[in-house]
Amino acid sequence: MRLTIKEILKNSEEFLDRDVKIEGWIKTSRSSKNFGFIELTDGSSFESLQVVYDDKLTNFSEIEKYTISSSLVIQGKIVESPGANQPIELHATSIEPICISNKDYPLQKKRHTMEYLRTIAHLRPRTNTFNAVFRVRSLIAFAIHKFFQEKGFVYIHTPIITSSDAEGAGEMFRVTTLDLKNVPMENSEIDFKEDFFSKETNLTVSGQLEAEAFALAFGDVYTFGPTFRAENSNTPRHAAEFWMIEPEMAFADLEENMEVAEEMLKYIIKYVLDNAKAEMEFFNKFVDKGLFQRLENVVNSEFVKITYTESIDLLQKSGHEFKFPVEWGIDLQTEHERYLTEEIFKKPVFVTDYPKGIKAFYMKENEDGKTVAAMDLLVPGVGEIIGGSQREHRLEILEEKMKANGMELEAYDWYLDLRKYGSVVHSGFGLGFERAVMYITGVSNIRDVIPFPRTVGSAEF
Amino acid sequence: MRLTIKEILKNSEEFLDRDVKIEGWIKTSRSSKNFGFIELTDGSSFESLQVVYDDKLTNFSEIEKYTISSSLVIQGKIVESPGANQPIELHATSIEPICISNKDYPLQKKRHTMEYLRTIAHLRPRTNTFNAVFRVRSLIAFAIHKFFQEKGFVYIHTPIITSSDAEGAGEMFRVTTLDLKNVPMENSEIDFKEDFFSKETNLTVSGQLEAEAFALAFGDVYTFGPTFRAENSNTPRHAAEFWMIEPEMAFADLEENMEVAEEMLKYIIKYVLDNAKAEMEFFNKFVDKGLFQRLENVVNSEFVKITYTESIDLLQKSGHEFKFPVEWGIDLQTEHERYLTEEIFKKPVFVTDYPKGIKAFYMKENEDGKTVAAMDLLVPGVGEIIGGSQREHRLEILEEKMKANGMELEAYDWYLDLRKYGSVVHSGFGLGFERAVMYITGVSNIRDVIPFPRTVGSAEF
Repeated sequence: MRLTIKEILKNSEEFLDRDVKIEGWIKTSRSSKNFGFIELTDGSSFESLQVVYDDKLTNFSEIEKYTISSSLVIQGKIVESPGANQPIELHATSIEPICISNKDYPLQKKRHTMEYLRTIAHLRPRTNTFNAVFRVRSLIAFAIHKFFQEKGFVYIHTPIITSSDAEGAGEMFRVTTLDLKNVPMENSEIDFKEDFFSKETNLTVSGQLEAEAFALAFGDVYTFGPTFRAENSNTPRHAAEFWMIEPEMAFADLEENMEVAEEMLKYIIKYVLDNAKAEMEFFNKFVDKGLFQRLENVVNSEFVKITYTESIDLLQKSGHEFKFPVEWGIDLQTEHERYLTEEIFKKPVFVTDYPKGIKAFYMKENEDGKTVAAMDLLVPGVGEIIGGSQREHRLEILEEKMKANGMELEAYDWYLDLRKYGSVVHSGFGLGFERAVMYITGVSNIRDVIPFPRTVGSAEF
Repeated sequence: MRLTIKEILKNSEEFLDRDVKIEGWIKTSRSSKNFGFIELTDGSSFESLQVVYDDKLTNFSEIEKYTISSSLVIQGKIVESPGANQPIELHATSIEPICISNKDYPLQKKRHTMEYLRTIAHLRPRTNTFNAVFRVRSLIAFAIHKFFQEKGFVYIHTPIITSSDAEGAGEMFRVTTLDLKNVPMENSEIDFKEDFFSKETNLTVSGQLEAEAFALAFGDVYTFGPTFRAENSNTPRHAAEFWMIEPEMAFADLEENMEVAEEMLKYIIKYVLDNAKAEMEFFNKFVDKGLFQRLENVVNSEFVKITYTESIDLLQKSGHEFKFPVEWGIDLQTEHERYLTEEIFKKPVFVTDYPKGIKAFYMKENEDGKTVAAMDLLVPGVGEIIGGSQREHRLEILEEKMKANGMELEAYDWYLDLRKYGSVVHSGFGLGFERAVMYITGVSNIRDVIPFPRTVGSAEF
């Protein structure tokens, strides 16, 4: 394999005075009469390598003109750098072009708006911001796998194309091979027997129900896959296609569910702080000046646990004027969530035991008959980042709730089977992956943490 | 967190003579007049825990009747086992039921056909075979991430919903929110401006083109996500929804591409052999008796590299009668591939430099004008498991090839941009994840390595 800039920077003492050959792209270039500097990247690390060349090179006057993002092969010697910005630099003995970038390269040295950069999603990872974002996104994804694998969780791929709707809510995308110009009909209904799967199918909104089936075989499982919402929500926090992590644990009640959620979030943040120092410093400096403080507060806090009923009480007593009035039974709005975590507790807060009327059918009903064993994790700066619950594992109660929700029991016979054959207490939660990436990088628009985002009206590339 | 059977089995010496409390499910149960045995699983490990109880328990006669898959809470002491099958066992002092499994539990002790088990995909992970399959599937997935992360590759999530078609081939699923009963038309064409993304969209068949864009920013990247084919192929090797791994490497030619593919495959196999000993022994014993031999042959072989032209020559000279006649220009059939890897070389073989007419537009044309820098990895027992190529990085040649393929250049302007702004030699390959799981477990039907498989006519659960 090729020698990378990462390797050289990591082992800079070892490489001192050594001759090396590096391939990479020009990030910046400047020159004076007799010598020039190229900031070179090969993509292997967020940091780049400073290359110094002088007019002893026969093609000196051409090198000066090489445009940003041109690809080069450079040979030379690694030496100590007199500059303050880097311990070493490369004194070039040869600089040869591979491909000189067209003059109309859309990423010139000036500042570009995030909106403009979204239109060139194929090139924006070459900017510092997006380079850092997608490096960190990759590390967060791996940290999640590492966390669950170390704890013995089994990773399962739940289906993307599905004929069921996990939430009984959420608008879905249809998946079909029917000819839209000539949709087969039978008795004025669409004849889905003619479709690829011989039935109506959609893109999944959650893998939870399938994950429950596997939790009852493996104890602890997790999913990590794409999910979809066909919602016409043009906000900085909504995408039509996003990734979710959904752990599901047999023999675990709501308390243990919260323990795992807290441990996971702290683990991921620590992993990124340890493994992406340069990128995180960049975010803290240029994207969100309070980032380190906020993340360290999460890592070092013991998360608060309060019930929904207590939280309503606290919000009412706060004297704060909210846009949405606070009373028992309402779904907490972002303003309420943020007030709880930012103003009252100043750290992450689990709110538990929500009114059953505002939560999903599969959540375990509490003894009080009014609330369910649900939990949402609220964090400063964002509000809700994780939502979970203990699942209703009692067959009769689950069936009653499903009927009350107007659901057809036959369509969920396999899900009910899980309550017939060795049902046990079990719990799980969902973490929106992009929400986590936004939270950890400080980037405020979901379109800027997804390589090629899909939102209403937009599916470019 | 709860005490797991895995923990006890792993630290059996430490747990000797200790009182423990375990929750789990009955795998098997048998009893005589005064005592009984329960094989208990809690999902934490492939191996189960033997529980011994006797008639000192007041509910002895009820315990005997507990059905398979019933969930229990058991307390007792860990002691050395007199039996040969396990070093330790649990002498129960209390066995209490959580949920007694219905008598009609579909997984009785007898052997079931794989076809039948597919109809109860929500319960089949409770069988030994599927329990082992999905544990190993999880480990293979993690090994792949670990391999690439350790090498500094950036994991990228390429889009699932897409408006482009990577191969210019492959039947695709349409994604839409249009009302199929009332499809909006304009000039006798479907008016996709009314659709969610304001254009025609499909499920991706490959993330390669998008991965190329990111490789030119990060050097080395990989994808690991679901891909889709709406092909009416009802075979043991085709699914409509499957996962793919697609690494893409800047500054890497075909030779380096093969190096990484070989290293990756060996790494994954070693990881599974090291981390799933019991499961792999199970497969070797009950699913595929030659499994260990086959896998060890892969791990310990240096893979062969021959050109397509050489392989045609070898097949012709072999004297073997093939169903599909062998001549230069044909696409190699599975019978040819298997003959090469199983009969001629008896180990994995890279076949390189295929005729350009049978390969995709994006592959780099060789000097001879007839072949492209493609590679397929063939392995004994399966045939092709990996396909890759060096990509055409020269703008003019790529444009010519695309035109010759009848492709509209404007639709791929962003892809062509990658050849205008700092183009470099780059390469990548694709590994079908389920093919790899089948290969490593010896399971011969793709429906049996996917939690809830999607195939033509079938999208249950």
